[in-house]
Amino acid sequence: MKLVPLGDRVVLKQLVAEETTKSGIVIPGQSKEKPQQAEVVAVGPGGTVDGKEVKMNVTEGQTVIYSKYAGTTVEIEDEEYIIVKQDDILAVCE
Amino acid sequence: MKLVPLGDRVVLKQLVAEETTKSGIVIPGQSKEKPQQAEVVAVGPGGTVDGKEVKMNVTEGQTVIYSKYAGTTVEIEDEEYIIVKQDDILAVCE
Amino acid sequence: MKLVPLGDRVVLKQLVAEETTKSGIVIPGQSKEKPQQAEVVAVGPGGTVDGKEVKMNVTEGQTVIYSKYAGTTVEIEDEEYIIVKQDDILAVCE
Amino acid sequence: MKLVPLGDRVVLKQLVAEETTKSGIVIPGQSKEKPQQAEVVAVGPGGTVDGKEVKMNVTEGQTVIYSKYAGTTVEIEDEEYIIVKQDDILAVCE
Amino acid sequence: MKLVPLGDRVVLKQLVAEETTKSGIVIPGQSKEKPQQAEVVAVGPGGTVDGKEVKMNVTEGQTVIYSKYAGTTVEIEDEEYIIVKQDDILAVCE
Amino acid sequence: MKLVPLGDRVVLKQLVAEETTKSGIVIPGQSKEKPQQAEVVAVGPGGTVDGKEVKMNVTEGQTVIYSKYAGTTVEIEDEEYIIVKQDDILAVCE
Amino acid sequence: MKLVPLGDRVVLKQLVAEETTKSGIVIPGQSKEKPQQAEVVAVGPGGTVDGKEVKMNVTEGQTVIYSKYAGTTVEIEDEEYIIVKQDDILAVCE
Repeated sequence: MKLVPLGDRVVLKQLVAEETTKSGIVIPGQSKEKPQQAEVVAVGPGGTVDGKEVKMNVTEGQTVIYSKYAGTTVEIEDEEYIIVKQDDILAVCE
Repeated sequence: MKLVPLGDRVVLKQLVAEETTKSGIVIPGQSKEKPQQAEVVAVGPGGTVDGKEVKMNVTEGQTVIYSKYAGTTVEIEDEEYIIVKQDDILAVCE
Repeated sequence: MKLVPLGDRVVLKQLVAEETTKSGIVIPGQSKEKPQQAEVVAVGPGGTVDGKEVKMNVTEGQTVIYSKYAGTTVEIEDEEYIIVKQDDILAVCE
Repeated sequence: MKLVPLGDRVVLKQLVAEETTKSGIVIPGQSKEKPQQAEVVAVGPGGTVDGKEVKMNVTEGQTVIYSKYAGTTVEIEDEEYIIVKQDDILAVCE
Repeated sequence: MKLVPLGDRVVLKQLVAEETTKSGIVIPGQSKEKPQQAEVVAVGPGGTVDGKEVKMNVTEGQTVIYSKYAGTTVEIEDEEYIIVKQDDILAVCE
Repeated sequence: MKLVPLGDRVVLKQLVAEETTKSGIVIPGQSKEKPQQAEVVAVGPGGTVDGKEVKMNVTEGQTVIYSKYAGTTVEIEDEEYIIVKQDDILAVCE
Repeated sequence: MKLVPLGDRVVLKQLVAEETTKSGIVIPGQSKEKPQQAEVVAVGPGGTVDGKEVKMNVTEGQTVIYSKYAGTTVEIEDEEYIIVKQDDILAVCE
């Protein structure tokens, strides 16, 4: 099954945070606030949303930072996705 | 009786969640948050809604993901429907 | 006395819910949440409401579903009416 | 002293509720929620209000239904008036 | 010192309420909610306020009724003034 | 260091309140609510702010009355400033 | 990794507050509210944001004052950044 977002919505998949010390040693499973980095899985068509013209500026495969309390979590075939409005994406990681 | 939604409203019928393990075994009746997947039953005509032009982008029969706390539940002839605004539909499942 | 609604307002009269089992037996007086079905009694002229052009899409005599917490209840000559904005009418029952 | 309302404001005078049984006997002073019927005493000129053009649709002397929690109560020369915005008037009684 | 209000603001000076019985006897100092009548002391130039064109409709010296919880109280040279937006003035007393 | 405000922002410096009795004797240090008078220290360029054209109407050196709970207090080189939007300035003192 | 902000967003890096007495002696580690000064690290492209045209007025390397409760803190490779909307930047320090 594939999620096709409507309007200015974007489907994200949260990246798993690898805990790394400054010297580079990975410490898995350490409690820490979940990162707000996610991969863009699908991008809506944009167009007129709430009477305003929206142009989509993110593309599939990009890693993005999104607003902490934004979006709706959905579980499809045992995978968890977050659907946000493009405006809740703060920055692209390059 | 048939529900004909007004403006940008959409009538949904929630899909019954079949609980399936990864290996494919269906475990019915397991407590789990109700899924946000629903079938589109009827679609309003769109047009000018709250002074803004709305074009309808969903069609009858589609399976959609809708926003958890959106919409109004109505019971018509012992069937339960959810009436949402199109903007509360996040994505179409294909 | 007759209620003539202003702007995009609609006067509704709530339908009495007949409790019916699936087999068709009517069980009156059973406690159940009041239905949100109502008959349209009078329809405002529409026009410019809050700076936006509103066209009225419901007509007298239709049965409609309205939003649960919307509207103002008024009692005129021992009859109770609900005055809602047209936008609080979700769907027409046909 | 005369109250001249500004913009889309309307001065109302609440009607005294006569408690009448169905058979027509008037029972004064019975406790009951105050009616939302009022007489229109003065009507503002309308015009541009909050950047929107407002046309006044009520006239002095009409009996109207107004929104329960709307308006400001003022006492002028021992008479109590309610000043509401025209949009808080739901319907005209004819 | 003189207060020159900006935009759609109006400087008011609250009128002292003289407690008068219906027969005309003045009873000073009786506890009663403070009246919402005030004299217009200074009127802003109007113009574009929050992106909307505002025309000033009150003039210095008028007695007006203003919205109870509106405005900011300022004390200038031991005199107390209330600065409100013109939209918080409900009516002019004539 | 100099603060250059952006958009419709204005940098203010609160005036120290000299407590003066009516007869003109200054009583310093008396507890009293802090005055809302401030001197304009720097004025932003105005222009398009939140999609609306804003023209700046205050100038450096003016004494103004500002809205009590508005603005952000910042401390730069041991001096305290308040940065407000021009719309939070109620009046100019002349 | 580099953060590329979207729309009218700006990436900031908070400046470390050096506690200095008036005579110039630096007292590190003194408890004091964190300063709202930050360095601009990256600036979004501006353009149409929420249906409004936004022109970016800050540039990389500037020291700015930002609104205390605005923005989202993100940690990228053990460095903490704050992503704010340009409108939450109050002033530039020159």
